[in-house]
Order: sequence, then structure tokens, then C-alpha cells
Amino acid sequence: MEFSEYFPIWDKLTPRQQELIAAGLAARTVRRGAVLHSGGADCTGLLLVKTGQLRAFILSREGREVTLYRLFDRDICLFSAACIMRSIQFDVTITAEKDTELWVIPSDVYRQIMEQSASAANYTNEIMASRFSEVMWLMEQVMWNSMDRRVAAFLLEEAAIEGTDRLRITHEAIANHLGTHREVVTRMLRYLQRENMVKLARGAVEITDRTGLEALSGG
Amino acid sequence: MEFSEYFPIWDKLTPRQQELIAAGLAARTVRRGAVLHSGGADCTGLLLVKTGQLRAFILSREGREVTLYRLFDRDICLFSAACIMRSIQFDVTITAEKDTELWVIPSDVYRQIMEQSASAANYTNEIMASRFSEVMWLMEQVMWNSMDRRVAAFLLEEAAIEGTDRLRITHEAIANHLGTHREVVTRMLRYLQRENMVKLARGAVEITDRTGLEALSGG
Repeated sequence: MEFSEYFPIWDKLTPRQQELIAAGLAARTVRRGAVLHSGGADCTGLLLVKTGQLRAFILSREGREVTLYRLFDRDICLFSAACIMRSIQFDVTITAEKDTELWVIPSDVYRQIMEQSASAANYTNEIMASRFSEVMWLMEQVMWNSMDRRVAAFLLEEAAIEGTDRLRITHEAIANHLGTHREVVTRMLRYLQRENMVKLARGAVEITDRTGLEALSGG
Repeated sequence: MEFSEYFPIWDKLTPRQQELIAAGLAARTVRRGAVLHSGGADCTGLLLVKTGQLRAFILSREGREVTLYRLFDRDICLFSAACIMRSIQFDVTITAEKDTELWVIPSDVYRQIMEQSASAANYTNEIMASRFSEVMWLMEQVMWNSMDRRVAAFLLEEAAIEGTDRLRITHEAIANHLGTHREVVTRMLRYLQRENMVKLARGAVEITDRTGLEALSGG
């Protein structure tokens, strides 16, 4: 089964545990924009991305967003199965940023396997620790970095993900990633344009001075 | 051994694993203000608080601080043993906020037990998930709440921890908890005093209108 090549601890499971997963597993294809998980009440299951791109974010009561992290090929999303751990007490929303093929492992199946298998439990620990590290990175950005630096870092990250310096993205979308208002992003982008680091067009931002952006982003 | 009453999964370990912990365990008593762990290079071990209070915070390059969470009686600190998981890639500092008695489980002992025991690995998962939840709560505070609300929430939290509405705390200390500058805290406290919610004195803040502070803090 193809899934076994994507699931890193497959070989560490017993045949019985492998059967349990195989029986519960569902393959899904979702379109860009699809909402895969929304909030804590929703216990969707573990998502394993085959190809595509997912985005995990939090939402304020007023509808503002901030991106926590992205998931790419072979990444696992744990918080879509938050119900497997009673200590997970926060809500994330997960949407597809690109057309995505993925597998869903039902929450109760995964919980059962985690209870039996130290390998599965330790693997889960590593996934959680790596998401935690991403959130801590974001926390440091939010706490210590000014918005111009955060916009610069975001543009560089997007360029790396998309493999191009000509980004098709709106100011609104950037604001939703960074948890700020569109007007703030527009002001920052205009500042970057005056400094000749980017060139703005309708629905697009082109990076024109990568070195300058890197210096500004502080890394 | 007294430790076994404080360590929730003791009974789920094998005699061999219990021996391993007992042999490695160290009891420590630290004074208020002691630094127990600082940054990632330092792999102190797991800390189990018997009595007292610890504070985990991050530090900017410029020396600004923000409190991530506190640890009280029977709490376990995982990030002082960050080296047990390669995916933990952030640095926290841990200091004693009160005189504290604690046990230290060496990192290599704990890692070994986690690898063998699904119970230990799942317990570690729960600890990490609950710290993650605290950090996510903080992230939401930082992203969506204005500083006046955050100061109000902080004062109420302190009053709950200390069991008194007369808090002995400086503006500088509050700023270090919230990751802001002293001047900002002073301005907020003066505003709260004008609204008759607190009364300020040298090195002290007294809560005079709990209902008002609760309404302001939004919870």
C-alpha cells in the first residue's frame, strides 16, 4: 500500500496495528480553498499530506487570522485530531492552500495505536514538538519584530514555497497570514517599494532586492 | 520513596525502569530567583516541582522577556530537557519565582524510558500539549488583545496565584511578564487607577475593583 511509504513509523507497528490503520484509512482529494478542519469540536482525524499544501491558522472573534504553520508533502497534521489528547485546548483551522491529496487516519484508530505503541507515541511527540517550535518562532516574531521585518520575512518565505520572486498575492491575504490589518500591510509594502526592495502590481508583489529583504528580515 | 507519589505514571513503569529513575534522580532546593535552565544548549533534565513556583520565559536579543507559563506543585517541566527531542528547537529560560523544592530526572534516563514505555511517551505528549495550549492562549492574547486587557488579565492571574488582591510587584516585573516596556505598563496602570480599578503604591498594586478588571480582561 502506498500509504506505508509515506507514514514513517509503519515498519515499527505490529501487523495488527497496520491492519487497524489500513481498515480505517481514507484517501481524500481536496480543492484549493477547502476547509479541512475547523476548531476543537471537530475531530477530523490525523491528516497525512501526499501532495499539496495546507495552512493552519487561528481566528479571532472578529474574524482576524494569523497563520501558525504550513504543511507540505509528507507532513502530518496532529491538531485536526486534537480530541486524541485532552490537554490540547486550543482551536486551529486548517484549509488547503493548493489542491491537495491526503490521507485521513481516524482519531480513535490513532489513539488506540498511540496507547499501545511507544514508537507511535514518540513519533507523535516529535510532530507536536516541531509544530510547537514553529509556533514559538512565530511568537518571537510577533513579540520582538516590527511589522516591516515580518512582512519582509513573509515575502521571502512565500518566494521559497512558490519557487518564484513574482508572488501572486493580495495585501489582504498577507494581512491574514500575519494577523494584522490590510492597511498596515499596504503601508509596509509601499515602504518596501520606496526602498526598491519590491515592485507592487495589482494582486502581485515582485521581490526586486532579495539581499535587502534578507537584511531587513534579520536573517 | 516520596517521588513516586508525585510522578503520575510511576505505577505504569516496570521495576527496572523505576530503578533507573531512582538511581538517576536528584532532589534540589533552590532559592527564589535561581536560574534553573537557560536556553537549548543546557540540557538540565526534567524538573518535577514538589513545592514552589517556577517561571518559563523567552528572551529577546535585547534582553526583553515574556512569560510563557508558570509551574506549580506537581507540575513537570519538559523544556528543561529539550535535548530529549530533536524537534524542540526553541530556547526557554526557567527561573524560580519562589523558593522551590524539586526533583531533577536526568535527560538520558527519561529518554530511555520514553523509548521503551508507551505510558511514559503518552504522558510526555500530554505535558507538551498542555504547555502548547498555554502558549497558544498567550499567542491569542498577544495577537488579539490590547495591552490594557492583558495587564488586567495579568493582575487577576497574579491575585489568584498569590491568594491576595494586594500584589507586591514592580512595573518592571509586569513588563517582563508581558513582553513590553516598563513605560507602557506604567501608563496602563495609571489608566486603571483613574478608572478606580487598582490603587498604586511603591512596588505594589492593589486590586480595588475586581469586577471592573474582569470585564476589561474579557473573561
